[in-house]
Amino acid sequence: MFCMPHTEYEFASRTVNSCRRFHWIPSLQRPPCGPRTNVETYEGQHSANKASEVQKRTFGSAATHNQRNPAYSELNSDDVCYFKSILGDNGVVQDEDRIAVANVDWMGKYKGASQLLLLPKSTKEVSKILSYCNTRRLAVVPQGGNTGLVGGSVPVYDEVIVSLAGMDKIISFDNVNGILTSEAGCVLENLSTFVENEGFIMPLDLGAKGSCHIGGNISTNAGGLRFIRYGSLHGNVLGLEVVLADGTILDMLTTLRKDNTGYDLKHLFIGSEGSLGVVTKVAVLTPAKLPATNVAFLSCNDYTSCQKLLLAARRNLGEILSAFEFMDHHCIDLAIRHLEGVQNPLPASQYKFYVLIETTGSDESYDKTKLEAFLLRSMEDGLVSDGVIAQDISQASNFWRIREGISEASVKVGAVYKYDLSIPVEKLYDIVEEMRCRLGDNAEVLGYGHLGDGNLHLNILSSKYDDSILTQIEPFVYEWTSAQRGSISAEHGLGLMKAEKIHYSKSTEAVQLMASIKKLLDPNSILNPYKVLPQSVL
Amino acid sequence: MFCMPHTEYEFASRTVNSCRRFHWIPSLQRPPCGPRTNVETYEGQHSANKASEVQKRTFGSAATHNQRNPAYSELNSDDVCYFKSILGDNGVVQDEDRIAVANVDWMGKYKGASQLLLLPKSTKEVSKILSYCNTRRLAVVPQGGNTGLVGGSVPVYDEVIVSLAGMDKIISFDNVNGILTSEAGCVLENLSTFVENEGFIMPLDLGAKGSCHIGGNISTNAGGLRFIRYGSLHGNVLGLEVVLADGTILDMLTTLRKDNTGYDLKHLFIGSEGSLGVVTKVAVLTPAKLPATNVAFLSCNDYTSCQKLLLAARRNLGEILSAFEFMDHHCIDLAIRHLEGVQNPLPASQYKFYVLIETTGSDESYDKTKLEAFLLRSMEDGLVSDGVIAQDISQASNFWRIREGISEASVKVGAVYKYDLSIPVEKLYDIVEEMRCRLGDNAEVLGYGHLGDGNLHLNILSSKYDDSILTQIEPFVYEWTSAQRGSISAEHGLGLMKAEKIHYSKSTEAVQLMASIKKLLDPNSILNPYKVLPQSVL
Repeated sequence: MFCMPHTEYEFASRTVNSCRRFHWIPSLQRPPCGPRTNVETYEGQHSANKASEVQKRTFGSAATHNQRNPAYSELNSDDVCYFKSILGDNGVVQDEDRIAVANVDWMGKYKGASQLLLLPKSTKEVSKILSYCNTRRLAVVPQGGNTGLVGGSVPVYDEVIVSLAGMDKIISFDNVNGILTSEAGCVLENLSTFVENEGFIMPLDLGAKGSCHIGGNISTNAGGLRFIRYGSLHGNVLGLEVVLADGTILDMLTTLRKDNTGYDLKHLFIGSEGSLGVVTKVAVLTPAKLPATNVAFLSCNDYTSCQKLLLAARRNLGEILSAFEFMDHHCIDLAIRHLEGVQNPLPASQYKFYVLIETTGSDESYDKTKLEAFLLRSMEDGLVSDGVIAQDISQASNFWRIREGISEASVKVGAVYKYDLSIPVEKLYDIVEEMRCRLGDNAEVLGYGHLGDGNLHLNILSSKYDDSILTQIEPFVYEWTSAQRGSISAEHGLGLMKAEKIHYSKSTEAVQLMASIKKLLDPNSILNPYKVLPQSVL
Repeated sequence: MFCMPHTEYEFASRTVNSCRRFHWIPSLQRPPCGPRTNVETYEGQHSANKASEVQKRTFGSAATHNQRNPAYSELNSDDVCYFKSILGDNGVVQDEDRIAVANVDWMGKYKGASQLLLLPKSTKEVSKILSYCNTRRLAVVPQGGNTGLVGGSVPVYDEVIVSLAGMDKIISFDNVNGILTSEAGCVLENLSTFVENEGFIMPLDLGAKGSCHIGGNISTNAGGLRFIRYGSLHGNVLGLEVVLADGTILDMLTTLRKDNTGYDLKHLFIGSEGSLGVVTKVAVLTPAKLPATNVAFLSCNDYTSCQKLLLAARRNLGEILSAFEFMDHHCIDLAIRHLEGVQNPLPASQYKFYVLIETTGSDESYDKTKLEAFLLRSMEDGLVSDGVIAQDISQASNFWRIREGISEASVKVGAVYKYDLSIPVEKLYDIVEEMRCRLGDNAEVLGYGHLGDGNLHLNILSSKYDDSILTQIEPFVYEWTSAQRGSISAEHGLGLMKAEKIHYSKSTEAVQLMASIKKLLDPNSILNPYKVLPQSVL
C-alpha cells in the first residue's frame, strides 16, 4: 500500500526546482520488521516445511556431490538408547515428520537423510552428545534456525542433527554497558525485543530474525542491515561458550570489552559454520537504541555518482548514517512489475540508479535538518537527480519494501541465479555490466545491494532454468570476483554450496591452514562434514 | 598552561545555579597529539635509548625467569653471512650500540642479550629470514616500535631481533571507503597524518603513536583512546599479510568489509604478540574524519553517579560520544601536586570522582546544543555536581592533560605498581577501595581509566619499592580480578610480564587450545619465545 502522492514540500532554497521533492516526517520510527527482509537471505519469514513453495526457484552452483564418508559410523539402537539416557525421551526425536523438517533447508535446495534429531537443553548435554559422537565416529550437523542459504545447517547424508532450539534462555543483561548474555538457541527477534525494552538494540538485524538463532548468526558471521553502522560480529561478540568435537567445553564467555590475555580464540568460531565447535552461549555488545530514523529514496544518473554520494554521505551524515543501499533501474522496474502496491516514489523520469539512505540518531529535529542539507547539497553538486524523504512510517516501509522486495520479485520471473559478492566499490558494478554483455537477450541481469559495505547482490533472471546460461555465468563470475580480490561469499558463508570454491577467494596457504585448524579441533571430522572446506584438503 | 579562569557562561536555564559552569567553544578541534598520551601506555614520547630516564619507576609482577631454552641454536658466523646474502650489509646490524637500543624496552624494565638485529625491506626477506631461522632453530623476536609495556618486543636471551622498521610504505588508500593498506612498519602517527589529509582518521590513537608501528598495534591488539567509539582492531582490520614461522607467506590482505569464505584466520594474529607469525602488511578500515570536537570536565559525588552518567551519555550523546574517562579525586590531587601548570578546572569544592567526556561529530552547533542539554539534564538529575566545557583548544588540551598526566605524576612520587584491568563496570571501583583497605597508610591507591570500556588503571604509589607492599598487592589483585571474570590485561597484552599469569583470565581448556595452535603454527617455537603462554603448556 504505497502512499502516493507524497505531500509536496518545496524545499526552502533558492536552488531547488520543482522536480526536487524532499519530504519529511519528524517522528519516524524504524519500519516494522515484518516486511523488512534481508532480500538476499530471505524471501520472507518462513519455516522449513514451507520449503516446497520456493523449491527450485533459485539456481546457481550446485553442491559438488561427495560420497558419504565411510569413516563415519551408522546410527544404531544403542546410540539412540544412550542419547535417551542423557536427554530423556523428549530430547530424542525419531518421528519422521519432525525429522523431515530438520532434514531440509528453507529453500528446499538441500536435503539430507538424518534419522535422528537431538534437542539438548544445556551445555553439558551438548558436551555429552559430542563426546559420544566423537568416540563413536557419528557425524553431526549443528542446527539453529535453519535459515542459511548455502546448505550449511542441514545434513548431507545421515548426520545426527543437534538442534539448539531448546537452549533459548537469556542469561543476563548489563544495562549500563548494554551487554547481553544468552544461550545460543535464542531467536534473534526475541533478543531484539528484550534489549529494546531495555533501551538497546541488537547490533545485527536481518530478514530471518523471526527464525534464526543468535548461535547460528555467530556461526555464519551474519552481516545484515546494521553492518554499515555497527560493523561485523567479530567486533560485537564479546564472549562465547563453545563445545568442541570431543565434548570439551570451551568457556570464553567473558563480557569484557577489552581482554588481551592470550589468543582471542572466539574469533575462530565466528563464521566457521559449526565446523569447529558448537556455540552454546554468547555475550554480545548491544548499542544504545536511538529514537530518530529517517529514510530517503534518491536517484542518480550514473554509478560514479552513486560512489560519490556514498563518500559524501559518510562525510556529511557521518555518525547518523545507518543504511546506504543501491539498486539499478532494472531492479526498480522488476519490483514495480511484480510486487503488489509498489510504485516508484520518483515517477517523473527514468533514472539509471537508485539509492536508499537511512539515518538513525538521537535527535529528530537535528537529523531532519542534517539530512535535508545533505540532500540539497548533493543535488547542487549533481550527484542526486531526484529524491523523496519518507513522511511517515508507511512511506519509509514502502521505500524499504522496494529494496527488499527485489528478491521476491525476482523469483516471480522464473529462474534466478543468485550471487552474493564482495567487490571493491569502484569495481562493484562492472560485473553487472560484463554479465549483461555476456548474456545478451538470454537473461535479465540485476545489480543491487549494500553499497556501503561493498556487497553486491547479483541476480540473473531467465524464464526457465537453462544449463547453457549457467555455463555462461560460472565459473566466470567467480573468476572475475577472484581477479578483483573480491569475495565469492560476502555474508552467506560457504556451507555445502561453495565449499569446493573457496580457492576463488582464499589462497592455497590460507586454505591449508584452515584445514590444519579443522584437523586440530575436530580430528575425526565429525562436525558439519562436507562443508566449508574442500574435501581434498581434509 | 591552564587557561583559568574560564569565561563564565550562565547557562540559559531556570535551574542552573551559579556553581554550574558550562562553557562552550564552537570551533574546537581535537587537541594536538603531543601532550595527549595514553597514560597507561606511555609517559610521553620516547625512544628506547631514553629508557634509563624512567628505569625502575614502575614495578609490579616481575617476569618469571625461565632458563634459556637449550633447544635453540646459538648464532654463528655462517648465519650472519647468510643474512647478509639476503639483506645486504645494511640490513644486518651487529653494531653494539645499535643492538643495545633494540635489546631493551623503553621502560628499561626488560633487557635481552641479542647479538643480531635484522632489517628486512620486504615480505620476501622476512620469509627468507624466518624460513632459515626455523630450519636452524634460531629464536626470533619480531620488533615494531618497541613501545610495549609487558616486555613483548625485546629479546629475553639471545633471540635474533627482526625489526619491521624498514617496511614503512603506504601501499594504497581507497578514499571512497576509507581503506588503508600499508606495510607493517609504518608509524601510526604517519598513517594518521596521511589519512587525515584524505579526510579520514585511524580507528585507533594512543600516546605512543609517534613511535609505535601499525604492525605492532595489531600484534598487541592495541586499545587506546578511540576504542569506545570505533571498537577493537578485530572489527577494524580488514586484511593482513603474515609470515609464518616456517617462512610461509599467508596472504589475507583483502580490503573487503565482508568476506565469509572459510575461517577468518587474520584474527589469530591480532593480539598474538608476534608469537604465531610476523605481520608484514595490513589493511585497515578508517572512519571519516569529523570536524567538531568538544570536551567537558565534570564531577560526581559517588561511583554510582559515574555509572549512571555513562549510561545517560550513551543514550543521549549516542553517536557523538567519543570518550568517557574517569578519575578519582586522588588522581586529581596528584596531578595538581606534580604537574606543572595544571589546576583543577573545578576549584570550588572537593568531589570524589571526575569524568572527562569528549564528543566528536560532524556539526558544531548541533553538538554544542546536544552536549549542553545533556549536561544540564544530568545536573538536574543529580548525576553531575559541577562541570565545565572547554572553550578553546588550549582548555580542551588541559582537561586531557589532567587525565593523561596521572601516570606521569605517579612516577614522581617514587615507586608505582601499575595494573591494567578489565572489570565489569559495576564492580570496577571495588578493587580500588579493597586495595585501599589492604594497604592502609603504606601506599596511596589511585583508580582511573577508560570507564566506557570497563578498563581500570590501578596505580599504587609508595615512596620506595618494597617487597612487602608487592606481596599485599599480588596475587590478590589477580585473584580478585579473576573472581569477577575480569581480565588481568585489558589492553597491554601478556608479553613476558604476565605469560605465566594467563590462568587468572583464561580457562585451562582455552590455554591448552592456545598452546595447540602455537604448536601447529610454530612447531619449533622460534617466534617470540618465553612470552604470551606459560612455558608449562608448550
